[in-house]
Amino acid sequence: MTNERFVTATYIVETCLPLQRAVDVLAGEQSTGTFVRVGRETAELRAEFAATAVEVTELPLTGSSALPGTVGDPAHRRRARVVVRFPLDNFGPSIPNLLAAVAGNLFEIKELAAIKLIDLDLPQEFAERYRGPQFGVEGTRRLVSRPRGAMLGTIIKPSIGLSPEELAEVVGELAGAGIDFIKDDELQGNGRKAPLAERVKAVMPVLERHADRTGVKPMYAFNITDDIDRLEANHDLVVAAGGTCVMACVNMIGLAGLEHLRRRSQVPIHGHRAMFGAFSRSDQLGIGFRAWQKLVRLCGADHLHTNGISNKFYETDDQVLDSIAAVRAPLLGLRSMVPVLSSGQWGGLAHATFREVGTTDLLVLAGGGIHGHPDGVAAGVASMRDAWESAARGDDVTSALERSTPLRRATETFGPVRV
Amino acid sequence: MTNERFVTATYIVETCLPLQRAVDVLAGEQSTGTFVRVGRETAELRAEFAATAVEVTELPLTGSSALPGTVGDPAHRRRARVVVRFPLDNFGPSIPNLLAAVAGNLFEIKELAAIKLIDLDLPQEFAERYRGPQFGVEGTRRLVSRPRGAMLGTIIKPSIGLSPEELAEVVGELAGAGIDFIKDDELQGNGRKAPLAERVKAVMPVLERHADRTGVKPMYAFNITDDIDRLEANHDLVVAAGGTCVMACVNMIGLAGLEHLRRRSQVPIHGHRAMFGAFSRSDQLGIGFRAWQKLVRLCGADHLHTNGISNKFYETDDQVLDSIAAVRAPLLGLRSMVPVLSSGQWGGLAHATFREVGTTDLLVLAGGGIHGHPDGVAAGVASMRDAWESAARGDDVTSALERSTPLRRATETFGPVRV
Repeated sequence: MTNERFVTATYIVETCLPLQRAVDVLAGEQSTGTFVRVGRETAELRAEFAATAVEVTELPLTGSSALPGTVGDPAHRRRARVVVRFPLDNFGPSIPNLLAAVAGNLFEIKELAAIKLIDLDLPQEFAERYRGPQFGVEGTRRLVSRPRGAMLGTIIKPSIGLSPEELAEVVGELAGAGIDFIKDDELQGNGRKAPLAERVKAVMPVLERHADRTGVKPMYAFNITDDIDRLEANHDLVVAAGGTCVMACVNMIGLAGLEHLRRRSQVPIHGHRAMFGAFSRSDQLGIGFRAWQKLVRLCGADHLHTNGISNKFYETDDQVLDSIAAVRAPLLGLRSMVPVLSSGQWGGLAHATFREVGTTDLLVLAGGGIHGHPDGVAAGVASMRDAWESAARGDDVTSALERSTPLRRATETFGPVRV
Repeated sequence: MTNERFVTATYIVETCLPLQRAVDVLAGEQSTGTFVRVGRETAELRAEFAATAVEVTELPLTGSSALPGTVGDPAHRRRARVVVRFPLDNFGPSIPNLLAAVAGNLFEIKELAAIKLIDLDLPQEFAERYRGPQFGVEGTRRLVSRPRGAMLGTIIKPSIGLSPEELAEVVGELAGAGIDFIKDDELQGNGRKAPLAERVKAVMPVLERHADRTGVKPMYAFNITDDIDRLEANHDLVVAAGGTCVMACVNMIGLAGLEHLRRRSQVPIHGHRAMFGAFSRSDQLGIGFRAWQKLVRLCGADHLHTNGISNKFYETDDQVLDSIAAVRAPLLGLRSMVPVLSSGQWGGLAHATFREVGTTDLLVLAGGGIHGHPDGVAAGVASMRDAWESAARGDDVTSALERSTPLRRATETFGPVRV
C-alpha cells in the first residue's frame, strides 16, 4: 500500500460535529487551507497539494472524555479511524517537515474531540535520506558475543548516587556473572557524583580486563544524552575508551538530534523512550508507538525500549507485544531495531514472554530484578539466564524451577513465575 | 523561591491510591528508586539524591477520564497540585538531562490517573549555560523599524503551493502595504514547488528593493526547519541574502536542536509551536505552556507562538492570556520572548486583545485575516494597523470603525468587531 508520491497517516479521531466536516478541517488545516478561503487558493493548487482523507472507518466510543475545547454537540460524538494521504512533495523526505504536516497544529483543532496519530506509511525516499539502524540485532549480538539466545542486561541501580568506584564494583560483579549488557539509568546523565567522563574511566577498564580474561566484552550503554553540540564529544569519549554502545533519550535530544548522532556514531545507539508517555499515554491525543518507532528507526536507533509484559508502567501486555512486533517488522528495507524489554522484568517472566514473542532476538533488561535478587547480582543474572535458556529450549516453568536455584530464590522476592 | 541547589517542578496529578503513596512513587521513580529496594541504596544516598515532594495541595476533580492503565479504586480518585524538589546535582544544568528527571518516565506511572508538568523553577546556572533570546522585543523592533505599536504580520497563504514567483508577488504587495513581518507557514519547509533556496532568491530582492525605497525592511521568517545538520546551511542561506529572521518548528528540531541553532544564529529565531498540542492539550497528561516556554526561552527562541484570543484552535482566552504573560515574564535575567498572537486573528480583535494585555510588545499575525480581506492584502494590512493604532491610543471600537474603511470592510467577512 506504499505509494511513492504520498505519505499516508492513520489517525484515531473523535468529533462532535458531522464526521466528514471534522475530517475536512483536519486535511485542510494540514495542507492548503486556512479559516477562510483566500485568493490564489485555486482549484489546481488544491488538486496538487491538498491532503485527502482516503478512508474513514467508524469505531465505537471508548468512554474517555473529549479533549478540552472541543466544539459541537456532545450527544453526536463519534469516533473513527481516518486515513489521510499527504502529497510527499508538500514537504519532501524530511522528518522534521513531515511532522509539521502529519503531527503539527492538528492536535489543537477544536473540531476534534480526540486526535491521535497511530501509524505512518512512508515512501522509500525516506530510507534513502535516513540511514536507519547501523547495527541492529546482528551487530549487537556480534559485539556482545551472544550469537543466539536472549541478550540479557540490567540498568545500574540505584539510578543515581553511586560513585564511579561503586559503579566499577557493580559492573565487575555483573560482568563476572556473565551479563551481556549494562546501561546507565536515564536519570544518570552527567550528574556531579558520577559525570560521564568519570563513569567511562571507571567502567571501561573493568570491562576490558574482563574481556582480556574471557574474550567477551559486555556492552555498557553510557547515557550520553545532552545538548546537541556535546553529543559527538560524549560519543567519542566512550569510543576512545573502548566502549561499544551509547545511550540517548530520544525525546530529550529529539528525533533530529538522534539522526545527527547516527551520522557520527561508530557504535550501536541505545534508544531510551523517556517522556514517550507525555504524548502517547492518552487514547485521545498524541502519537502512538507504531508511528513513532518508525521515525526513531529511520533516525537510526539500534535498540528501542518497548517495555516488557507485566511491567510496572501503565501499558497492557497487548500494547507491549504490539510494540515488540513493530520494531521488528520490515520497514523500507532498513534493519530492525532490537526491542528492549524493560520495567519490572525478572526471570519469572521469561517463559510467558517467549511464548508470546517466539524469538530471542531481544534485549531483556532487569534492574530491580537483578540488583534486588536475594542472593545478589550474580544470582540475579543467573536466574535470568536460566529462565531464558529454559524458555527457548521449550522447557516448561516447573522444570526451570526445579533445575535453577537462582530462579527459585528469585520467586521469594518477586512472587510466583508467570505461566 | 528559587533555590540554587534544586529544581522545583510543579505537577497536576490524580491518583486512585492514597495521595501520599502516588507522590512517593513519582519522586522515587524520578530519582533513586526502582520497584524494589536494592543494595547500595543507602539512607545517605537517599538523603543526598532523592527527589522530595515539598507541597501537596488537593484540587477538585475536573470530570476528565483517568489515564489508561491507572490502578487503584476509582471511587477514591483525587486530584492535587504537587511540588517536587529535585537536587540539581542529579543532572546538572543540562536541559536534556533535566527533562529525563522532571518529564521522563513519570508519564507512564500507573499509580497516576493524571500527570501534567505545569511549571518549573530553575536555578541561575541554567542561564549561565543557555543563552536565551538574542534579540527579543527590542532587537526585533529595531530590525523592522517599528519602535512602538504592535508589530503586525502575516503568514503566507495558501500555506503551500505558491510558486516562488507568486510568493514574490504576494510579498511585494504586503511590503507595499506597510507590513512589519511575514512568515512561511509551518507546512512550507522545503517542498518541491518552492524550496527554501528558491523562496529566499525570490523574496529577498523584493524586500531589499522595498528597503532601498523606504528605508524599512519587513522581516521575513523563512522556515528553515530540517535535520540538524542542515540548519546552519539553511540559516546561512537566509542571512547571506539579507534575510533578518529564521523560523524553526521547535518540536520538530527539538529543544536541543533549537539550542544548537541559537549558538549559530545571527538573526532572530521565530519559534513555531506546531505539535505542542500533542503533549499539552489534555488536562490529564503532558507538559503545560508555562513550563515548556521556559525551556524554549532558555534554548534561545526570540519569538514564540501563544495563539491569540478568539482563535480557531482549542485554547480559551484565559489560557492564551496566560501564555502571553508567561513569555513576557522575568526569567533568570534572560530577555523576554516576543509573544506571537496567531490563529484566526484579524483587526476586529485588536481592542479586546489590547485591553487584556495592556502592551503592544506583540507580534500579531493574521493569515486569513489579511489574505482573505475582501479588498485584498493591502486593505487587510491597513485594517490591522488602523485597529491596533486605535486600540493603543485608547480609542473605542466605534470610533475605530468610523475612521477606518478597511476595518469596516473586514467586518463584512470576519463578523462583528469583538468588544
